[in-house]
Formats: sequence, structure tokens, C-alpha cells
Amino acid sequence: MPSENDPLLSSEGSPQTGASNDKTSRRSSRAREIGLFIWALLATAAVIVLAVWVQHSQQTDRGNRDRDNNNGAPKRNLVFMVSDGMGPASLSLTRSFRQHVDGLPINDTLVLDQHFWGSSRTRSSSSLVTDSAAGATAFSCGKKSYNGAISVTPDYQPCGSVLEAAKRAGYMTGLTVTTDITDATPACFASHVLFRALEDDIALQEVGDGVLGRTVDLMLGGGRCHFLPNTTEGSCRMDDIDVAKMAQDKYNWTYADSRSAFDKLESGNKVNFPFMGLFAGADIPFELDRRNMNDVYPSLSEMTEVALRSLELATADSDMGFFLMIEGSRIDHAGHINDPATQVHEVIEYDRAFKAVLDFIERSDTETVLVATSDHETGGLATALQEPGHLPVYGWYPKALAQATASCEHLAIKLQEHVLATAMSKDKLKHWIEDEIIVKGLGITDSSDEELDVLAADPAGALTVLSAMISLRAHVGWSTHGHTAVDVNVYSSGGPGTEAIRGNIENTDVGAFLREYLDVDVEAITVELKEKMDLGSMDVESMAYDYFM
Amino acid sequence: MPSENDPLLSSEGSPQTGASNDKTSRRSSRAREIGLFIWALLATAAVIVLAVWVQHSQQTDRGNRDRDNNNGAPKRNLVFMVSDGMGPASLSLTRSFRQHVDGLPINDTLVLDQHFWGSSRTRSSSSLVTDSAAGATAFSCGKKSYNGAISVTPDYQPCGSVLEAAKRAGYMTGLTVTTDITDATPACFASHVLFRALEDDIALQEVGDGVLGRTVDLMLGGGRCHFLPNTTEGSCRMDDIDVAKMAQDKYNWTYADSRSAFDKLESGNKVNFPFMGLFAGADIPFELDRRNMNDVYPSLSEMTEVALRSLELATADSDMGFFLMIEGSRIDHAGHINDPATQVHEVIEYDRAFKAVLDFIERSDTETVLVATSDHETGGLATALQEPGHLPVYGWYPKALAQATASCEHLAIKLQEHVLATAMSKDKLKHWIEDEIIVKGLGITDSSDEELDVLAADPAGALTVLSAMISLRAHVGWSTHGHTAVDVNVYSSGGPGTEAIRGNIENTDVGAFLREYLDVDVEAITVELKEKMDLGSMDVESMAYDYFM
Repeated sequence: MPSENDPLLSSEGSPQTGASNDKTSRRSSRAREIGLFIWALLATAAVIVLAVWVQHSQQTDRGNRDRDNNNGAPKRNLVFMVSDGMGPASLSLTRSFRQHVDGLPINDTLVLDQHFWGSSRTRSSSSLVTDSAAGATAFSCGKKSYNGAISVTPDYQPCGSVLEAAKRAGYMTGLTVTTDITDATPACFASHVLFRALEDDIALQEVGDGVLGRTVDLMLGGGRCHFLPNTTEGSCRMDDIDVAKMAQDKYNWTYADSRSAFDKLESGNKVNFPFMGLFAGADIPFELDRRNMNDVYPSLSEMTEVALRSLELATADSDMGFFLMIEGSRIDHAGHINDPATQVHEVIEYDRAFKAVLDFIERSDTETVLVATSDHETGGLATALQEPGHLPVYGWYPKALAQATASCEHLAIKLQEHVLATAMSKDKLKHWIEDEIIVKGLGITDSSDEELDVLAADPAGALTVLSAMISLRAHVGWSTHGHTAVDVNVYSSGGPGTEAIRGNIENTDVGAFLREYLDVDVEAITVELKEKMDLGSMDVESMAYDYFM
Repeated sequence: MPSENDPLLSSEGSPQTGASNDKTSRRSSRAREIGLFIWALLATAAVIVLAVWVQHSQQTDRGNRDRDNNNGAPKRNLVFMVSDGMGPASLSLTRSFRQHVDGLPINDTLVLDQHFWGSSRTRSSSSLVTDSAAGATAFSCGKKSYNGAISVTPDYQPCGSVLEAAKRAGYMTGLTVTTDITDATPACFASHVLFRALEDDIALQEVGDGVLGRTVDLMLGGGRCHFLPNTTEGSCRMDDIDVAKMAQDKYNWTYADSRSAFDKLESGNKVNFPFMGLFAGADIPFELDRRNMNDVYPSLSEMTEVALRSLELATADSDMGFFLMIEGSRIDHAGHINDPATQVHEVIEYDRAFKAVLDFIERSDTETVLVATSDHETGGLATALQEPGHLPVYGWYPKALAQATASCEHLAIKLQEHVLATAMSKDKLKHWIEDEIIVKGLGITDSSDEELDVLAADPAGALTVLSAMISLRAHVGWSTHGHTAVDVNVYSSGGPGTEAIRGNIENTDVGAFLREYLDVDVEAITVELKEKMDLGSMDVESMAYDYFM
């Protein structure tokens, strides 16, 4: 009840003092009520405005956290790129080469450089120096294994791959490479064998003839020979299984094996899934050579664009996006050969494909993350070489790489074919080698008589001699024709969860990121594989020292 | 005015209907007023609570931003570490070596690895391959310059260093190295000469005998010979200036030149500033050798602890903190020599010093940031080596490094001194070399007769032969005795502004970070230097090809 202590009334006294005061009292009460009403209304409005504002802020924060935590499962695409054999020195080599040939400023960088965020430790379970099979198993299964292992663990048991788990979860899946589609890196995403050399088996599993059925929707690359029966020209199978035919008849693949068929894909707008395009018998030629071949073969960036566009269209009406693995496969081959001119063009093309993915991310409505790394370094590349018998010079010379018009691989084959086809005297052969191989091919005009002698005397060894000649002129060093243990770079477009792969990480952390970003159950695939699959047995340890790439 | 349309009244009718209703009317008016009052009060309270909460959130955000932007100038320390000549492969080499010798798991990492956040492009203005002088000028001045430049620009003009600007701004300053304190890296922070070989001049500027006066408060390292007059044993000066005496008499330095004097510093608790400790005539011995010398020389981590503690004490009552540059100088020397066993111990000691700084940051009340990088890679180190005439093996062998008990530098000198002191027959010398140098020193038990022949025939060339022997056993490759162009790693403790040096950056970006973090005016120093300083002239370009480290 109101009283004198009523704070509402104390300033104006009691309203009960007499009838004469009633009107005044009522009027002041009225005024009070109106004042109170306005106050209450304004305060309430303020509460509402503030509450809405706070709620909005919190929702925005939570939304960001949700995306980071992959809760709420928005539609997602994941593109994983592998630069096989690209170590840290490949970047300084290519960056400076491009600055030189394109007349760019000395602080110009590759697109890759602008998305560099970490490095990966690469050792396998069996050695400080991994091969591509163990390297790719770290990505596909997220587990360390022995050199040569194709998504099997050191106990010779299969382990589920992120691609297989993604397919099961409803994603579309793709593999795009410039080497054989049955080579170690792509193989690890869609097959399980005890040793990488079992490419005939890998081909069968890749088209769907394995215990999991078909898990890949798109394959673009080389390695056609493993899909043709050994009764056919162009086959490299041990058996007479026509895998290409089986793929079409039994697993419904659309199959293409030519540039004209590639062009009919209309940049990915006209792809019937599942689609398998094998555009070379084995490797797609090095980019440096490919450009001189009237574009008979598609480039990595062309295939990348087809893959992205076609998978985008195929998932347009789905709640699930796609997982695509793209490999710049032959950076590694240039490293094995120790051919620096060839390598810079491979890296530039890989950079172009990386840019194509970023452009896709930019224009896509679907959340897409790009992660890129290497499996290992190849060659022990060093961007400086001390000439034997000389003091070290502080520099290396991109100009010497810019003058090459063909890869050492191409030139060595050209020389060997020429020797087989003609019967030149040694002197005449030396002149031919100097003109056709050294000057026209490598752009070297100061070859020594000794170098020409060695080439003429042993054309079979030309690959090593030619790559040493151009490396010497460029002052680029190599320590091996194999791999090395240096940490490799990790790149990403940024985006949800990519914080986890910044800094110095283990290669298996990349595998963990892939499955976590897609939120797929790789372990369930492992269980199923272990139940259903018989990997047979083989003396892997004795093979491991005979076969490497 | 109240009316029938008055929403306050409409539910209860007009209060003016008669006296009999007055009491009821008043009562309901009263109730309304109370209701309104409570509503207004609650709403107002809600507004206040929300407003305070929002303001707090915003202040927290702004506070974080302010720290990032270096506004408000809190007291700060900055520690900048340089791993001279440490490239990416040094890390995989050292990490696996330590795992091997300490029996650690294969995912064990160095402290450095855990703070890896980016890489730096290193080219100088004159070459794709920098030397340490141009490299350190990029850090000290934040500018690209020519190989050999000690904080001068390509137009041969001096550029102010971050240390000089820090001193002017009131910071305490320090330099801690394991090579000559007049060597290129420390020199760039406290002197300006046209070419790095002018170490006599550098010594004078470092103690304060230059146009800026004294800018360094603490120097710890080697290179005493440049501070002694050429009339004294142990001098390497061209003139008879006693720089150590001048430093004490004219510039008030406390000078120490022995282990006992170092120990009297009591881990930094007893340092009189300015303090100069030159604990070796030239380089402090490699860590691998130092440990065998009864700790006559302080290690990098010991000197680091003294520097941190003494600078902490000296700035305890100041509004300004300190800037300290610490260099793991001789990682580079091990690279030049191509000695992998020596290098891993240098890197481990550098890692220990890095850890000591992190520990300091942990316990310090003053905001402190640690940034660490290399100036360049040295040696073209590769963690795999293809033995001539063999196929590549996928591995390298830390065990071969673990067996070495001395550096190749130490062993080559030992051999040369032995040959000078004795007159052994060649056969006897070969046996002595095998026993004393190869087995006891390098831990190699399978030396070939050819290797021993070469060593006995040409002891002057022993350094190259010994380092090649141990590298071959470890299967570690090198491409040069000079530097290479590969990007080097960037590390940091994290903290305000360090986002700017994540990813792939230019080495000058590191220099920009240093001055921005300290918020000091390097440009003002440049202006003053240009006014006051005469650098003289010399044919720098012809020298640049004769002198490198």
C-alpha cells in the first residue's frame, strides 16, 4: 500500500489531503504516469535494441565458431593438392626464374608463396627419407607406414582413405594427376596394395573392382597402359584384363583417351559421371615439352578447371560437396632427373593450377578449402653450386634455365632415337648432338669437347649428362637422384580448421585435417576393409630397396 | 492531455466518472504507477547491465587491438635471434639426430619447430645469393643492399640500425654472438662500413668511437683480436690502437676476456654496464669442441642467460625495456666446412638458447617478443646423398654423426700441428691419422686406404677431406662451400604484431617488424648518419667476389 515512504509520492505529498486537491492530484498523478510510461517505454526499447544487438553479435561469433568446429555440417568442398617432390629450394628456384623471364621485380612471388603457412615433417615408418607411397598414405589414411605402402599400415593391414570415406558420406570424389593415375599418390586414395608396383591391381580397385566397389567419380591424368589388356598395343599390364572396358560395362564409367575427347568436356560443363580421362599411355609430358606438342595433352591447370567445374555441377543439387585430389606429379620426376629447367616449368604450372582452385573458391557459393603440400623433396636441390676446382660463387643463373626449349628427358630420347635410326660417324654425331640437342634443346652454346665426347660415346647415359650440363651452367646443385628428408611446405586457402595445419606439423596431421574438415569416418572404412580384403603376402622389405619413385 | 484514446486509461475507463469512484480510481492509478515504476526500473537496470557489458566487451576488443597496434607504448623487450647459415635441411638433420642420440620418438621436435611460423626470402640487391652482411643489413636497416654492405645502402650511404634507434629511444641494447663481435651480423647493428672486411673500423664504432657515440650497452662473444693493438700478441688489427683500453678509458666499458671473468657475472646478476666480454681471440670454438675444453669458453646459451638477466636488471626501474640480438654464428661455419656432425651440435645449442629466451619471456613481467630467423642457408645441405656409382638410397644415417667427438676444423688443425711437430714416415703418419683423427675424432672405422693416402699426402687439404668422409658415411649431401638462395625459416614467440612476419616474407620485412615493435625512428638515425659520417670510398664491387662468409 502507498505510504509516506512511498518514493513515488514523497516529493508531492499525499494525494489524500482533500477534495480541492483532487484535480491537481489527479493531474500530477497523470503526469507521473505519463512520465513513468515514457521512461519505461524508452528503457524497454533500449533493452530490446541492446538485446537484439548482443544476440546478433553472439550469433555471429557462434556462427564463426561453428564453422571452425564443423558443427552444423554446412555443404563443403575440399581440394587437396600434392606437389610431388617439391622442396623449399624449388620455390626460390622457380620464383627467381619467373622474375628473370617475365622481367618482374625482385619481390615478386608465386601465388603459392602468398598462401604459405607451415611445413611438414615427412619421414616414413621405415626410413628418415620417405617415398611417395608412404607419403600419400600419411595423407590418405593419416598414418605413418613403410616406403612402398599403398594405404596399408606397417602391419600389412589396409587402412581406409579419406576419399573412400568421403564417397561413403555422400561427397563426389576426384583424382587429377599428370603421371599414371595408378601411381603411388593417386593410388593411396582409392586402393590398397602391399607395394606400389602392383599397379595392375591398383587400376582394378580404382575403377571399382575392389571390396568397396567404386569410390571415385572422376579420374583425369595419364597411365592408360594399365587399363588396356596385354593383348593390345600400348598396354603395360601383365594380364589380359581390359580394365577400360570393364570400367565402362560393369561400373558405368564414361571413358576418354584423347585430346578431342577432353575438349568435348567443354571445360567441365559436359562431363558424364563417373568419368575417366586417361590422356597419355604413361606420364603426361613435362610442361616444357607439352607446350611444343600442339597441346595434344591437357595441362594440369586445364584438367584442374575441368575437375572443379564438373564436380561443382554434379553437386549443385546435393547437400554434400566434393573431395578432389590434384597432383603436380612430375615436379618429382624433374627432381629425379636433376633437370632444373624442366622443374621450374612444372612448378609454374602447379602454381597456375593452385591459382585456378583459388579462383574457384572465390566464385563458388559453396564453402571450399584448398590445402596443398608435398610428400617429400626430390633431388637434394640447392640454389647454388660450387664448380669443382673453383671457389664458391654467391649466385645462381636463371638465364641458363630460360634458354632451354625441351626437357633433358625429351632430348635424351631424341638422341637415342637418332642414334638408332642413323649410322653417323662419331665426329658427325658429335656435331649433330651439339646442334640439335645442346644448342637447340638446352640453349647451351659453350659445351666442352669432353661433354660432347661422353654423349656421343654413351647415348644411353645422356639423361644424366644433359641434366648435369644445364645444372652446371645455372649453378644449381643436386645431391641425389632420389628423395631427401627436408621438411616440405604446407599451403592453404585458409578457412575453417586450417589453423591446425599451420606451423611445423607431421605429414599425418595433414591426413587428420582432411578427414576432419570433411567430417568423415575413415575408421569405419578401415574396419570394413579389414573384414573383406585379402591383401595376400609379399616380401615387401626386400622390394623396398629395389623400387622407388 | 489524457483522453479516451489514452492507452493508459482505456482499459479502466475515465477517472472522471464521479467521487464514488475516486478511491478506486486513485487506487488503480496508484497500482498503475507502481507497475509502471517497476517496469521502468527493471528496464533501466537491464539497459545499465547491458550497456556495461557491451562497453566491457568493446574495451577488451579495443585493448587487444591497441596492443597489436603498439599504441599506448607499454614497456617492451625485443630479442632477435639469428641462426647464421641455417637452412630448412639443418632442421630435419638436427631433429632426427637428436631423436637418434637421445632415443626420442619419431615425432619429437626441437623447441624451434614448435615456434615455426614462416619463411624469409633472402636475396640481396646484388645477387640471388646473399652474404651475411647484406642479410643483416636487411634486418638492421630493413633495406636490401649489396653483398658485403655493413648497414649501408646500394648508393654507399649509411642507414640507421634498429639498435641505434632503440638506444636513442631509451632502450638498453645488447649483442651476443659466438663468432667475432665485429663479424657481419653483429656489425650491422652498431656500425656502418662499405665492406665487411673493415673489422678494425667496426670495432671502434661498436665501442662508441663513431659519429653516434656509444649505442651498445652489452657485447658478449669472440673476436678479441680486433680490440688489441698490433703491438700485442693476439692482435689481428692493422693498427696499434688499443680498442679495449679506449673502450674502458674513454667510453666507460667494463671489459672481460676470460672464463673466470664470465663466471663472476653470476649468470647476469653482477654486470656493470656498459659491459664487453670478449671470451675468444676469434671464434668461440664449435659447441662439439667447446664441451671437450673444460668449458673454458662460455656457450651461446650461457651467454644468452647472462645477457637476458643483466638487461632485465638494468631496465628494472626504467619505462623502457631492452633490444638484444643473439646470433648462433657458427652454424654457418659448419655449413661452409660441410661438416654435418658439427652443425647438429651448433643447432642444438642454438635451440637451447632459443628455449632460454622463451623461459625468460615466461617469467618476465615485461612484455617480451622473440623473433628468430636466418640470414641465408650455407652449404646447400641435403639430408640424403647418392654415393657416386651407386643408386640412390632412401635414407640418411644420424648414427654416423653421433660417433664424432670433434669438429673437422679441430681435427684438421690437430693433424697439421702434428705434421709440423713430428717427422713421421708416410706409413706411420697414415696409421696415426687413422687412429687419432679418423677413429677417435670422427668415429669412422671403415676409412679407405685412398682416403688415408690423400690425408697423409696433403694435410693442408684435410678439412675438405674429413668433412667429405663424415658426410659420405652419414649420407648427407652438400652442393657448395658457400651460401645458397633457399628461403630460410622464421620463428617467433608470438605476441603483438608478430602476425606480420608469418607466412612467406621478404627479409626486409623482419627489419620492419623490429623497428615497428620497438616503435623507434630508424630514419632519424639515417639522417644523422648521412650528415655526420664520411664512409670514404673503396672498390666494393671488385672485393665482393674475393671475400665471403
